[in-house]
Amino acid sequence: MKILFLTKMLDYFKERVMDLKSEFPNDEFVIPKDREEAEKHIEDAHVIVTGSLSREQVEKAKNLRFVLVPWAGVNGLPLELLNDRGIIVANNHGNGKIVAERAVALALALLGRIVEFHNDLAEGVWHGYEAGSHPEDFWFSLQGKKVSILGLGAIGRNIAKLLSGFDCQIMGYKKTVEPVENVHYVTNNLDEAISFGKIIFVALPLTKETYGLINKERIEMMHGKFLINVGRGQIIDEHALYYGLKNGILAGAGIDTWYLYPDAVHTVQLPSHYPIHRFKNVVISPHVGGFTIEGQVGRIDETVENIRLILSGGLPKNIIDPKSGY
Amino acid sequence: MKILFLTKMLDYFKERVMDLKSEFPNDEFVIPKDREEAEKHIEDAHVIVTGSLSREQVEKAKNLRFVLVPWAGVNGLPLELLNDRGIIVANNHGNGKIVAERAVALALALLGRIVEFHNDLAEGVWHGYEAGSHPEDFWFSLQGKKVSILGLGAIGRNIAKLLSGFDCQIMGYKKTVEPVENVHYVTNNLDEAISFGKIIFVALPLTKETYGLINKERIEMMHGKFLINVGRGQIIDEHALYYGLKNGILAGAGIDTWYLYPDAVHTVQLPSHYPIHRFKNVVISPHVGGFTIEGQVGRIDETVENIRLILSGGLPKNIIDPKSGY
Repeated sequence: MKILFLTKMLDYFKERVMDLKSEFPNDEFVIPKDREEAEKHIEDAHVIVTGSLSREQVEKAKNLRFVLVPWAGVNGLPLELLNDRGIIVANNHGNGKIVAERAVALALALLGRIVEFHNDLAEGVWHGYEAGSHPEDFWFSLQGKKVSILGLGAIGRNIAKLLSGFDCQIMGYKKTVEPVENVHYVTNNLDEAISFGKIIFVALPLTKETYGLINKERIEMMHGKFLINVGRGQIIDEHALYYGLKNGILAGAGIDTWYLYPDAVHTVQLPSHYPIHRFKNVVISPHVGGFTIEGQVGRIDETVENIRLILSGGLPKNIIDPKSGY
Repeated sequence: MKILFLTKMLDYFKERVMDLKSEFPNDEFVIPKDREEAEKHIEDAHVIVTGSLSREQVEKAKNLRFVLVPWAGVNGLPLELLNDRGIIVANNHGNGKIVAERAVALALALLGRIVEFHNDLAEGVWHGYEAGSHPEDFWFSLQGKKVSILGLGAIGRNIAKLLSGFDCQIMGYKKTVEPVENVHYVTNNLDEAISFGKIIFVALPLTKETYGLINKERIEMMHGKFLINVGRGQIIDEHALYYGLKNGILAGAGIDTWYLYPDAVHTVQLPSHYPIHRFKNVVISPHVGGFTIEGQVGRIDETVENIRLILSGGLPKNIIDPKSGY
């Protein structure tokens, strides 16, 4: 089989591909040098490792049987077309515990007013340096608070685990109600979950069902709440998020996943159509949820393991259900 | 007895003093309006609630029997003079779990490069938005790392508790070796503790023994380590800290307690004599470790309880040992 890698390749990833080459000497592993070479190999590749394919690329890929997404989000693929062609798509959750740490770090930074206080002190401006002097300078403790986690996949479960020392009451939202470790209440009622928490973590996949799920009505239910998003930007309606911040409905927001991204032409790019970055009670992060060495090694190891399963005649793990989209 | 409050009084504190007034109608509770009125009452007060007294004030205070510090640090008092006069000093640890949260928030912000990435993205500059593209944009996970906590009082113990979901190996440093919950190894050898952790939390009291304890030699032992200070600034030698950052010895620093503070004249004040705030791998925080509503309520409740114990004819809790200074 021909396995084509259409994704940025860390040295660690290249080394693992070398391992595969010696284990499977009769298969072909292609890391193309440029876009042109890549396009040629798409035509006869059996497996493509990528998070992003156009409809045209899929139509051109005559031999394609598997698409392995080297992370969790499959929203860069034409899932229906791939399903019509009988092509199996698998993703992976090897960086879930790292994305969960990003979510907790963003929550503590937001509640702790870490960025606001840092930037002010760097200009010599103090917030309540003398204990008890200015209540408006209080930050907010996460300990003992009610927390809602929307989505109890690898990320959501790990958020609950990381918070286990914080004495929080945790409610998780998922479609199928079942017991989940470290989560005290599991509900399939989204509005119940939104009402419950003082801090709300969004850790859902982006699907047709979750697109714009947190709309203006649901933002209006979040009076005085802190909202953290490490899922995908579009799960929270962009204007609703801005509306909730501008009108003081939300107590604050910590966002890692966005509406606008840089590309080859616009390398400098603000992450939203609205000036969300200008609110003091917002912490923004450049979609780096899994971006640690452990997060990379985790997702690469899972991807390589899936290639191994396919080349041994089996099926990959974490096959995407084309109906639900995750 | 006359109880004099020489500290900023939150409304919550004033309300608790009202409670004391009704419980102890024969005692006198004084919240002076200004410095002048305060100085008069010092002369015959039996109990002073304060974190700061000059030698002159102590010498003037003929009736003084107790000084209640409404937080943990007693470094603003002339402890030897108070001891010579037989005046009992008590502090409190009611905000220890909140200071611990500040320490963990600073650690996650530092390792997560939260401030650096926020400030860059607010100008449209991204760090590794596409997974795997730029290893130099990696942040660092705290999970599974070795952690050293210098000082296992209320703050240090709570740091260990908050980290219990992070699968860290935790070594604690304290004078007397004894088992401590959530701490895997306890040592009374400071250098062993410094060598152990990738992340080092300073949660010691400031005493004669701890002043400048983290000197240049010990900073040089911290190659590639992250240093967090929520104890008191002077525990880490100021120039040694700057030296460790300037020369790339430390992987980074997160600091809440400082060398320079604002006062009535210099309200705008950088927190160090050195430009520590200009390093990208530094998170600075304006000494707000206990500065949440829970932290304030905790320390105020403990202070009020100590007043209650004294007025009932007993001794306060958390009496300071004049020899050790904590």
